[in-house]
Amino acid sequence: MEVCTKCANPKIIIKRKQSGQALCKNCFIENIQKKAIKTIKKENLIDKGDKILVALSGGKDSVATLDILNTFKERNIIDLCAVTVDEGIANYREDGIAIARKHTKRLGIEHKVVSFKDSFDTDLDEIMKVPNHRISCSYCGVFRRWIINRAARDFEADKIATGHNLDDEVQAILMNYLEGNIDNLKVIGAKTQSKSPLFRSKIKPLREIPEKEIGLYTIAKDLEIHLAGCPYAQKSFRGEISEIIKNLSKNHPTIMYSTLRGFDKIKIGLKKEYSNDFQFDSCIKCGEPSSNEICRVCTFLDELGKKVAIE
Amino acid sequence: MEVCTKCANPKIIIKRKQSGQALCKNCFIENIQKKAIKTIKKENLIDKGDKILVALSGGKDSVATLDILNTFKERNIIDLCAVTVDEGIANYREDGIAIARKHTKRLGIEHKVVSFKDSFDTDLDEIMKVPNHRISCSYCGVFRRWIINRAARDFEADKIATGHNLDDEVQAILMNYLEGNIDNLKVIGAKTQSKSPLFRSKIKPLREIPEKEIGLYTIAKDLEIHLAGCPYAQKSFRGEISEIIKNLSKNHPTIMYSTLRGFDKIKIGLKKEYSNDFQFDSCIKCGEPSSNEICRVCTFLDELGKKVAIE
Repeated sequence: MEVCTKCANPKIIIKRKQSGQALCKNCFIENIQKKAIKTIKKENLIDKGDKILVALSGGKDSVATLDILNTFKERNIIDLCAVTVDEGIANYREDGIAIARKHTKRLGIEHKVVSFKDSFDTDLDEIMKVPNHRISCSYCGVFRRWIINRAARDFEADKIATGHNLDDEVQAILMNYLEGNIDNLKVIGAKTQSKSPLFRSKIKPLREIPEKEIGLYTIAKDLEIHLAGCPYAQKSFRGEISEIIKNLSKNHPTIMYSTLRGFDKIKIGLKKEYSNDFQFDSCIKCGEPSSNEICRVCTFLDELGKKVAIE
Repeated sequence: MEVCTKCANPKIIIKRKQSGQALCKNCFIENIQKKAIKTIKKENLIDKGDKILVALSGGKDSVATLDILNTFKERNIIDLCAVTVDEGIANYREDGIAIARKHTKRLGIEHKVVSFKDSFDTDLDEIMKVPNHRISCSYCGVFRRWIINRAARDFEADKIATGHNLDDEVQAILMNYLEGNIDNLKVIGAKTQSKSPLFRSKIKPLREIPEKEIGLYTIAKDLEIHLAGCPYAQKSFRGEISEIIKNLSKNHPTIMYSTLRGFDKIKIGLKKEYSNDFQFDSCIKCGEPSSNEICRVCTFLDELGKKVAIE
């Protein structure tokens, strides 16, 4: 009978195809936390005294990020706060917000919910009714990043932690390899920093943990998560790439790890050869950092006949 | 009715999905030749006075390579010679050799057929009967490269031209991205040079032309080609990757081009960061260049109880 490779407990909850390692619940939880801590240390994601804002949707990735970073808060290494973005998607976002609220309340973490409606005087459900609208993910990504970065400044947070997992990271790498997009490849990594003082740097503590292991972590730790999929999600290039990686992983269980390791080596060369020398100015409309005169949020809002609604 | 984008001839033989360009037979032939010449010039593959050995299997890619390089020979820019490797695969290789002979005879090009049997006192049919043999492609690739490089020196050729097409190149790039193999990525390119004076550099004039357009070129030019597939070919990682790229290309017709362009930019950084500083010595057994004391050919032959059979 198979037992836990670490403690010989016969109740195993995972057997890793790539290594043959079998783990019981407690050893798995410890293993995932150690993996995240290893990334945090190796990539120098956290400095003592940091205030870190978690971008908390209530889904498995952000809930696991909050849970793992909370172990640093409990040891008084960092301070935590959280923001949840309400895109205004009826019968979908409400549950995520409720779950995010429960977690932050339970852990005693400052938490704010910021809506598209309050920020931009419109929301995703409304936008999706506008004729000739862009695809939903375009608005959502651009608007969400704007809100989260601004929330980080409001909270006086030093960094923003996101729940990006190994699958997310490898998808982004492969998409940009295939598109030959060097500018995007240059900024993929455990930590993104910007030259603009208005930007807060972003960190990804779960970058080396596969999506399904993060799901299992939230189950093992009995963490409530928001499971529903976005009703506006549609077939995308990322979706195609995600399928390809999932299929390849069946016969090549270490392929996501080898892709990430290879990319991290490639990136060293990329950063030397293609230094990031473009300057950020402030958007003349909303004052947020932008590499163009008008930022993407204001460009999109313009198209919709709207403008930024908060100071 | 659709007509040729270049000359308005109504008999078109290709419509390119990526650009919408439609071409008649003559304009297509000219277009492919121009594309190969563009690669040759851009990557500086040919110097005036070069003697170039074409690795000529008789398949579409090597026949097209010979045909296109022959236009340089006709203009007295280069001299050409050709080698065909006979792996000893019954009911398969004979036809390829016959076709290679016809082309070189027709064009008045020096041509040699070199067999595994003469070189190594064994052949692929024999090896495949040895218990616990490696997969066929391992022997074939290693043995073939040894023979071709040696033939280049025998012919006093300056360079070796191979028929690698865009599909081959993108497959190799993607495989190594996914495996995170920086050492392999560093040497993928239009031209490979080595520090050992025993190696001849390799050039790939068809590197930016998709496989199916090379097939169409041989049909348009009425060039006889060997179409049969190797009887030992089997499911491989390269095969999986080839399928993935073919499927992606259906909805993203420019994806092979963007992958190649992106890689060529990435490679500049790779070469700077990871300079190739390993030295080639000569194999103590066969005297051919090797980064180890004993080269891979002699290692494989050792396993088979054989040794290099020619001086």
